[in-house]
Amino acid sequence: MMTEFTCPIPLAEYPRVLLAHGGGGRLTQHLIEKMLYPSFENPLLVPLHDGAVLPPDGGRLAFTTDSYVVQPLFFPGGDIGRLSVHGTANDLAMCGARPLFISCGLILEEGLPMEDLWRVIVSIREAAAEAGVQVVTGDTKVVDKGKGDGVFINTSGIGALLPGLDVGPHRLRPGDEIVVSGPIGLHGIAIMALREGIDLETEIRSDTASVYPLVEALATAGLDVHMLRDPTRGGVSSALNEMAKRSGVGVVLDEEALPIPAEVEAVCEILGLDPLYVANEGNFLALVAEGQGTRALETIRRHPLGARAALVGRVTAGHPGVVVMRTKIGGQRVVDMMSGEQLPRIC
Amino acid sequence: MMTEFTCPIPLAEYPRVLLAHGGGGRLTQHLIEKMLYPSFENPLLVPLHDGAVLPPDGGRLAFTTDSYVVQPLFFPGGDIGRLSVHGTANDLAMCGARPLFISCGLILEEGLPMEDLWRVIVSIREAAAEAGVQVVTGDTKVVDKGKGDGVFINTSGIGALLPGLDVGPHRLRPGDEIVVSGPIGLHGIAIMALREGIDLETEIRSDTASVYPLVEALATAGLDVHMLRDPTRGGVSSALNEMAKRSGVGVVLDEEALPIPAEVEAVCEILGLDPLYVANEGNFLALVAEGQGTRALETIRRHPLGARAALVGRVTAGHPGVVVMRTKIGGQRVVDMMSGEQLPRIC
Repeated sequence: MMTEFTCPIPLAEYPRVLLAHGGGGRLTQHLIEKMLYPSFENPLLVPLHDGAVLPPDGGRLAFTTDSYVVQPLFFPGGDIGRLSVHGTANDLAMCGARPLFISCGLILEEGLPMEDLWRVIVSIREAAAEAGVQVVTGDTKVVDKGKGDGVFINTSGIGALLPGLDVGPHRLRPGDEIVVSGPIGLHGIAIMALREGIDLETEIRSDTASVYPLVEALATAGLDVHMLRDPTRGGVSSALNEMAKRSGVGVVLDEEALPIPAEVEAVCEILGLDPLYVANEGNFLALVAEGQGTRALETIRRHPLGARAALVGRVTAGHPGVVVMRTKIGGQRVVDMMSGEQLPRIC
Repeated sequence: MMTEFTCPIPLAEYPRVLLAHGGGGRLTQHLIEKMLYPSFENPLLVPLHDGAVLPPDGGRLAFTTDSYVVQPLFFPGGDIGRLSVHGTANDLAMCGARPLFISCGLILEEGLPMEDLWRVIVSIREAAAEAGVQVVTGDTKVVDKGKGDGVFINTSGIGALLPGLDVGPHRLRPGDEIVVSGPIGLHGIAIMALREGIDLETEIRSDTASVYPLVEALATAGLDVHMLRDPTRGGVSSALNEMAKRSGVGVVLDEEALPIPAEVEAVCEILGLDPLYVANEGNFLALVAEGQGTRALETIRRHPLGARAALVGRVTAGHPGVVVMRTKIGGQRVVDMMSGEQLPRIC
């Protein structure tokens, strides 16, 4: 319905966000009651109340938080709103949990076009519906012009642990096989291509998506999943290095197997980036027990989101704490943790 | 111990926060492992993991979120770190819940002095210990210089509903009596006096504190508490107006009874502010069943934090949606919801 996408705040009167929209008075109430509450209405969300009361849950819960400061706010394949829902839903999925509830804390910059805020809110609503999460509590602050950057969003999330999954760095073992659920580098390169004004024949779109269905599929298939990790900031390299260092194991990657799209490779070459350090927002690394990699791969590939999944490496007892890549030309090189700042404000 | 307050990041090497501290690579890991994780270490907090797994809880849970953008970051009586813990713990208490777990999402501005960050972290740790909450998950982002304002903090919280308490706007009834648990206006005026450079004989200190012990005392005393509300942004006036409008009841306040400190009155006079619109961070409004106001007052006053509590008004069937004040000189005036922005970035 088109009417759903008409900004419910009169734009002639309030074309931009004012400091008073965050002041706790009439304009704050107006913003909440006209725009925010109707967008997320559900039985647990009470407007202007201090928090949500959650229904009792039989099992154990996961709790996570993430702030989103991506720039620009809107990019091919998504925007900061979608990202803030998917990112937090994915963090819960990486704990082996079904995402249930999220909070939404907005920090707006005075002068933000009201329509931009509305686009972000619509995205949050759509992404929450897709990811099967309810936005149950929220907060809005406004900072002076020049003291923020349009919109920052914090989403915190609560999920219910899936029975039968026990994931974490304590479970990594030499022999574990590593599957990546989708193409590498799309999110980061979509943002960088936009920022740098690189003209591409084929537009690169962010992969931002909720990966929970794939995690549920792995659990349902009865696979012995040892660790789940979404390679966001810092990319695949940082995610694997952190795991290797914390668990005292080594990792071997097979360069040939890495699903890096040609267009990602091309932009990385132009910008002097390594795709392994580029952020992803719609894939994850699943480390499964020795001998289960192929079955995990098949399980993931059955979903459209996992169509380009690949078995990319394994955990070793050798070189603990170090990630080594077997290169296409038959050599070996250490894939180090990123140092310095490759891609600022990518998520 | 003095050593506890030495910044664990070498200041000669890193006197200021760099963009790379938020980039997901080596410096991010350094910041988390040297400063953040050791400050909040607890069995549920796993460094560099995507979320916390909470122990099973028998009862119902409350979930809340708040972002803190107060300026200046440090003020008499507290700082943004203390505020971010107390504020979220208090939101849970206002749901009738015991605060248990909080998340901590930091948005840092490039160039922030590392020592300022450390002071904030120490404050968060101290405030969490005082409030009896565990910081179980977190996130750190860094934005470019000029795109933030030192530190913004989002804390989200999970609490366990106290058995025997059922609070919310649905429970307000004509006859309910209104107790405010402590002096009015201290937080907002402490900030404003500092910002405006007003020289005071007696320093006004923010009241930032966790009010949960007072809520627990009311529950333990078996009082029939109908509604709890902390009058933060927008002050006592906005809190009461929101309640009156949502519940379709009227409110009568007794000006004579309001515990407004003389120094708050004085600064309000200088700045042309009304203390009823000024933010508080360490008191709350308790609305209890008719006839129970005095006992609620006595219960609250037994705690040091509630020593200056007062019975300040009641809920009426007349003038639904409107808050009326009986003035000291025997008149009546409507106390309206704040319109516009009186005190930007007060919390």
